[in-house]
Amino acid sequence: MPIPRLALVPGEPAGVGPELCVRLAQQPRDYTLTAFGDADTLRAAAHLLGLPLRLVPPDQASAEPGTLALVDWANAAAVDFGQPDPRNAPAVIGALRAAADGCLRGDFDGVVTGPVNKATINEGGIPYTGTTELLAEQADCDVVMMLANDIVRVALATTHLPLRAVADAITPAALERVLRITHAAMRHDFGLADPVIAVLGLNPHAGEAGHLGREEIEVIEPVVAALRAEGMQLVGPLAADTAFLPGKLRGFDAVLAMYHDQGLPVLKYSGFERAVNLTLGLPYPRVAVDHGTAFDLAGSGRADPSSLFAAAETCARIARLRGSHRGRGVG
Amino acid sequence: MPIPRLALVPGEPAGVGPELCVRLAQQPRDYTLTAFGDADTLRAAAHLLGLPLRLVPPDQASAEPGTLALVDWANAAAVDFGQPDPRNAPAVIGALRAAADGCLRGDFDGVVTGPVNKATINEGGIPYTGTTELLAEQADCDVVMMLANDIVRVALATTHLPLRAVADAITPAALERVLRITHAAMRHDFGLADPVIAVLGLNPHAGEAGHLGREEIEVIEPVVAALRAEGMQLVGPLAADTAFLPGKLRGFDAVLAMYHDQGLPVLKYSGFERAVNLTLGLPYPRVAVDHGTAFDLAGSGRADPSSLFAAAETCARIARLRGSHRGRGVG
Repeated sequence: MPIPRLALVPGEPAGVGPELCVRLAQQPRDYTLTAFGDADTLRAAAHLLGLPLRLVPPDQASAEPGTLALVDWANAAAVDFGQPDPRNAPAVIGALRAAADGCLRGDFDGVVTGPVNKATINEGGIPYTGTTELLAEQADCDVVMMLANDIVRVALATTHLPLRAVADAITPAALERVLRITHAAMRHDFGLADPVIAVLGLNPHAGEAGHLGREEIEVIEPVVAALRAEGMQLVGPLAADTAFLPGKLRGFDAVLAMYHDQGLPVLKYSGFERAVNLTLGLPYPRVAVDHGTAFDLAGSGRADPSSLFAAAETCARIARLRGSHRGRGVG
Repeated sequence: MPIPRLALVPGEPAGVGPELCVRLAQQPRDYTLTAFGDADTLRAAAHLLGLPLRLVPPDQASAEPGTLALVDWANAAAVDFGQPDPRNAPAVIGALRAAADGCLRGDFDGVVTGPVNKATINEGGIPYTGTTELLAEQADCDVVMMLANDIVRVALATTHLPLRAVADAITPAALERVLRITHAAMRHDFGLADPVIAVLGLNPHAGEAGHLGREEIEVIEPVVAALRAEGMQLVGPLAADTAFLPGKLRGFDAVLAMYHDQGLPVLKYSGFERAVNLTLGLPYPRVAVDHGTAFDLAGSGRADPSSLFAAAETCARIARLRGSHRGRGVG
């Protein structure tokens, strides 16, 4: 395939997204970058970092360091770094949707997204629980959120749910869907012919033979057994507290956690800077930073761009792998 | 004070507990050890390890390597390492209770416990959810379970509960109790005059200003505010996924997690071998290993004794600190 064409969405304009995108634009790269965002905000970020930034029209997208193609989504209110303004919520969401539309149409081979602040978007009058959920709805498909670094890949069976809603959300149908999506993504997006996926229990000690909850026996084990019978390599349900021991982790290509705070603390502890957030199951690759808007750092120039750099590299790698499958007719 | 007198309970006889106790007995130490367990099992463990073991009567407890004082709790069935037998459940629980009684009477300055298998005890007809819970009931006091290694100390607001029961168990009264016990233990057992305790939220992103659950606003924040007004240094409620980032952790003396799998995966990932399990709030120090019975390793001689060694050292250190408080009349 020709070099991957990536869409880049800075996200919340008052956060660290714009400056991280300016830093990414400086990097040598083997993919083109087209930003969906506000031109003035990107220029202000470049100015405060003292870095060059040439914004060019979308049809001139290139891999040239210091250059970003831009689809301009003008903010309603001038941006003051560190001070989110709900009036800019429509531009933030509009840019996201437009970039995703471009991927769905085939104008781009993947999208890389910066951090969005949920509260600011909701205060701006737009119902929003997360970019993962927004992209799934727009593409009308089921997705799985996965966070990954060099140590571990964690897929989540549920994402941004209140804790008291988690147990009822783990249904056999939902769990089967999540495992199929994760398994397919490990094969097609990570190039693993026969991936090993560890499945965590819902309850402490994976329910300890029913003494600490019965969802393992009634929901998780039957689903795991049925998919194993199809040939998937699934381990578990495992006790979450010991599943991440380094010696065990080395045997797993991915770990499926049942909920957000079961899987993500250890992932972020083990390598926050290089961690990325992937949306599995979309028709195109989407990779995001694993951090928030960091309003306390925005405008200081001190935000670490490692996660955005890793996100762009990961997205380009997956785009290339998907392109080569298509080239070979594997799909 | 004279050197600490520690009670030692091997726990499940078919697990790795007996052989770890034999290894501990070999170590140079500045405390006495009195085991509560089955003499034949301890001798069999010493034999298979090829290590010396002299069992002496309780009134001859000493710090001499190779020696254990023994209060004999004979098993009902002969022990086959790796094969738990529910008929031995009464001896396991009896030994635990007797050691705890000895601490309550003041015959010992603390107790160190090996792993117990919940399922085996329950199959033996004894209702049992965990040693922490058993000791709390016996001493008739509220306790907090804490796991600690050289990196982080994690206290748990709830322990061995099915996940779906967690949210309702986090009441203002329960949370206040847990924070008071944890704070007092950091002061008296760890010698920290003004400990900083991080309090995690219950929901992902600590509820994200109410968008992902309201327990932070309705339960956790009011309790934290009230205790802060009394002078406690409490941070939070914090999002669990980023609270454990190494840079943040260095600022906390302890982290209070709302439930088992929110706090323990990262603790075990960050240093399983040297981690110990403490019961805070008892009239005496109790420290346990942080691992299970490891039936697959029992009898092989390959079980790592680091956690039991760390547990005994921690228990002796706390006993000494409590003794010195008493000596100075601080209490």
